[in-house]
Amino acid sequence: MTAGAADSAATAAPTGAAEDGFRRLWSELLPVGRVASTGGYRRFAWTPADAECREWFAAAARARGLRYEEDRNGNQWAWWGDPAAGDAVVTGSHLDSVPDGGAFDGPLGVVSAFAALDELRARGVAPRRPLGVVNFVDEEGARFGVACVGSRLAAGVLSPERARELRDGDGVTLARVLERAGRDPDAIGPDPERLARIGAFVELHIEQGRQLEQTPYPVAVAGAIWPHGRWRFDFGGTANHAGTTRLEDRRDPMLTYANTVLTARKKARLAEALATFGKVEVRPNGVNAIASLVSGWLDARAADGADLEAMVGEIERAAVERGQRDGVSVRVVRESFSPEVVFPHALRDRTNELLGGVPTLATGAGHDAGVLSGTVPTAMLFVRNPTGVSHAPDESATTADCLAGVGALADVLSGLACR
Amino acid sequence: MTAGAADSAATAAPTGAAEDGFRRLWSELLPVGRVASTGGYRRFAWTPADAECREWFAAAARARGLRYEEDRNGNQWAWWGDPAAGDAVVTGSHLDSVPDGGAFDGPLGVVSAFAALDELRARGVAPRRPLGVVNFVDEEGARFGVACVGSRLAAGVLSPERARELRDGDGVTLARVLERAGRDPDAIGPDPERLARIGAFVELHIEQGRQLEQTPYPVAVAGAIWPHGRWRFDFGGTANHAGTTRLEDRRDPMLTYANTVLTARKKARLAEALATFGKVEVRPNGVNAIASLVSGWLDARAADGADLEAMVGEIERAAVERGQRDGVSVRVVRESFSPEVVFPHALRDRTNELLGGVPTLATGAGHDAGVLSGTVPTAMLFVRNPTGVSHAPDESATTADCLAGVGALADVLSGLACR
Repeated sequence: MTAGAADSAATAAPTGAAEDGFRRLWSELLPVGRVASTGGYRRFAWTPADAECREWFAAAARARGLRYEEDRNGNQWAWWGDPAAGDAVVTGSHLDSVPDGGAFDGPLGVVSAFAALDELRARGVAPRRPLGVVNFVDEEGARFGVACVGSRLAAGVLSPERARELRDGDGVTLARVLERAGRDPDAIGPDPERLARIGAFVELHIEQGRQLEQTPYPVAVAGAIWPHGRWRFDFGGTANHAGTTRLEDRRDPMLTYANTVLTARKKARLAEALATFGKVEVRPNGVNAIASLVSGWLDARAADGADLEAMVGEIERAAVERGQRDGVSVRVVRESFSPEVVFPHALRDRTNELLGGVPTLATGAGHDAGVLSGTVPTAMLFVRNPTGVSHAPDESATTADCLAGVGALADVLSGLACR
Repeated sequence: MTAGAADSAATAAPTGAAEDGFRRLWSELLPVGRVASTGGYRRFAWTPADAECREWFAAAARARGLRYEEDRNGNQWAWWGDPAAGDAVVTGSHLDSVPDGGAFDGPLGVVSAFAALDELRARGVAPRRPLGVVNFVDEEGARFGVACVGSRLAAGVLSPERARELRDGDGVTLARVLERAGRDPDAIGPDPERLARIGAFVELHIEQGRQLEQTPYPVAVAGAIWPHGRWRFDFGGTANHAGTTRLEDRRDPMLTYANTVLTARKKARLAEALATFGKVEVRPNGVNAIASLVSGWLDARAADGADLEAMVGEIERAAVERGQRDGVSVRVVRESFSPEVVFPHALRDRTNELLGGVPTLATGAGHDAGVLSGTVPTAMLFVRNPTGVSHAPDESATTADCLAGVGALADVLSGLACR
C-alpha cells in the first residue's frame, strides 16, 4: 500500500481498526484547550490544558499495552518493544499549541503515530526494531518564548541553565513551573543515552502551505527546513501624558516600532524571505500615556542562512537609525536561532521509496525533527492542507487525507522496522 | 496671603498645622498601589489598591469630624457644614491612576483639599457656605476604557446602561465589578439634586507640562481644556503561520496598524495638535503567528474641535486606504469624546483675584472639573511640575510648591466660602 498517487488515496486508507483508532483518539483530544470564542487552541506547556493532553497520551499508550515513560525533560514516550535493544524507530510530534492555534499542528503527528501502530497490528506485522511514539514537550514555545524546548534540551542544544531561567508572561520561571508540576528542574538537560538508542525518527505533520493542494498527492516528504529565528526588539522611550506632552518633547517608542514593522516587511520582500512582527508588548499600555517601552518580536526566515543574517542586520540598522530620530533606544536580543536543516538523503530517499514516490517539500517551519536531526537520522511526512492555513483556527485537513497519512506512516514504519 | 509672585512662595506656605496635615496625609497614601519594579502606581477603579485609597479618604474625613458619604456612583464626599443648605463650595480630585502613573495626578488635589480645610481651621475662619471635599471614582478610565466615569455618571453625560456594560481587560463588566464591591449597579446614574447643591467646584491638580517652570509662579489657574477623545482602531486580518505563509498570501493587520501610527504622528504635526497610539492589543500575539486582529487606541487632542475632527478623519481615511492594500479591514469606534471646556470667566477671574494674579493656562488633559463644568461652575488650580512629566513615575512637584498649592487653595476657599 502507498499513499502516493491521488487515485490510490482510497486504497491508502488504513484498515477499519486503525481508522477507528484514529477517529477515537482525534475526537478525545479535540475539545482539550479549545477556546470557544475563537475555535482555536491554547495548549501551552505545563498548563492544565497541556496536562490533559499529556494524560490523553499516557492513556493511549496504556490502552495499547505500550510501555509508557516520561523522560527527565518532560517528553513522553510509549514503546512497543524494549528501547534498550537500540536502533529504535520513533514517530510522533507534539501536543502543545500557539495561542489560538489550529487542531492539527502537532496533534496530527501524535494521533497518527498511535493509529499507525494500530495499523501495523491489524496487518499482523511485528517490529524487529523497537518502535516508539513520542510527544515532545513545549514545541511551539508559546509560553516561554523558545521553541522546541523538550527536544532541544534532550539534544543538548539548549542548556538546562538557560532553560530554567526562561520566564512566562507572568514572570514565572520554567524552573518554578516544573516544580509546581511536580517535576525536578535540576534533572533537565542533555539525554544522549536515550537519543543514542534511536536509529530513526519520523515526524508526521500537517503541511503549512498549499503546495500539495496543487498536486494529486495527499502526503509528501520533507527536504529541508529554512534557517529561522526569533529576535526581540526593545524600543525604550519615556512615558508621559499623551494629552499634554508636546510632540517635540516626546521620546515615543511606538513610532520606532511602527517604522520597524514596515521596514521588516520591505526587506523581506526584497530578500524573497519572510519577516513578521506578530507579537508586541507595551508598557504601560495606557490609552492616554505615551509608551515607555515597546517590545516587538521579529520572526525571520530565509532559504539561505547568509541571506537571513543580512536581512535581520538591515532591519536592525534601520531600527537604530529611526530610533535616533525618535530619541528612542533600540536593543535587539536573538532569542532563538535554528540553522538550515537538510534531512539526511538516505532516510529521506528510503521513506519516499516506501511511499512509492511522493513530492519532496522544503518548509519555513521549525520542528522537533529539525532539532533532532543533528543527533539522530530524521525524516518528515507532510499531510495535505487545502487552505494552507496554519497556527490559526482554520488550519485543516480532510479526514481522507489524514487517514492516508496514517497509512503512509504505517508503510514507512513497517518498511523501516518490521521487515 | 497669596501664592502669586515667586518671592511670596515662602509666605504662601500654610500654617504648621496644615503643613503637618499635608505631610501626614501624603505619606499615608504614598505606598498604596505602588509597583516596586517601576516606582509607578496601579490604582485602578474598584481594585484592592483603589479600595485602600478610599478607606484612606474616609479616615481623613473622620479624623477631621467631617460628614462622610458615598454617592450612588461611588464618588466619596466629606462635608464641613450641611450640603442641604445649598450653594456649597467643593474641592477635590481623584485617587485612581493610569498604569504605572505618578503619585501626584489626582491625589495631590485630594490631599491638598483636606490640608486646605486644616489651614482654614488653623486660621480660625468658619465657612458661611457648606464646604466639601470629593474623590471622584475612576477618573483615569484605566480599567474600563472610559475616563471620568464617576463625574460623567453624576452629570448625566454617561448613561448608566452604557456604564454597566463597560468591560475591563478580563472581560468583566462594571456592573459585575460593582456588585462584587458590594455596590448596587442599578443605582448608578444622574445625580442632579446632589450637583444642584454645589455653587462652585475648584479642583487643584499637578500641572501636566512645563509652562509654570518658565515663570516665577508655583500656582496657576486653568483657562480651557482642549477638546479630546479616544478612538479604537480595529485592524482585522487573518491569522496564519509566520514561517510558512507567503508575503503575497498574507492579510497582516500589524502592517496597517504600523502605518496608521506613523500617519497619526504626521497629521498631528501638520495640525499643531496631539495624536498618540499608546495602547495596543494583538490577537493571538504569538511570535510565530501572523496577527488576526490588532486593536490600537488613538488619543487625539487639538485646540479647536473642528481641527480635531478633521485630523481624526484624515487618520481614519489613511488607515482604510492602507488596509485595502494589506487586505485588512479597518473599523473605528469613538470610545469617548470631550468637547472643549472654557472655564466660566467669572469664577476663573475671582479665583485669580484671590490669588493676587497668577498665570492662566490651557491644558490638553481632561479632568472631572471639565466634565462638571456643564452643570456646575468650576475652576482649576495647577501646581508647578518642574519636569512636565505626567502619567509616569517621574511626575513630581517640590514640597514647597505643593504647600504653596495648599495655601492657594485655602485662600480660594476662604474667599469663596468664608467671607
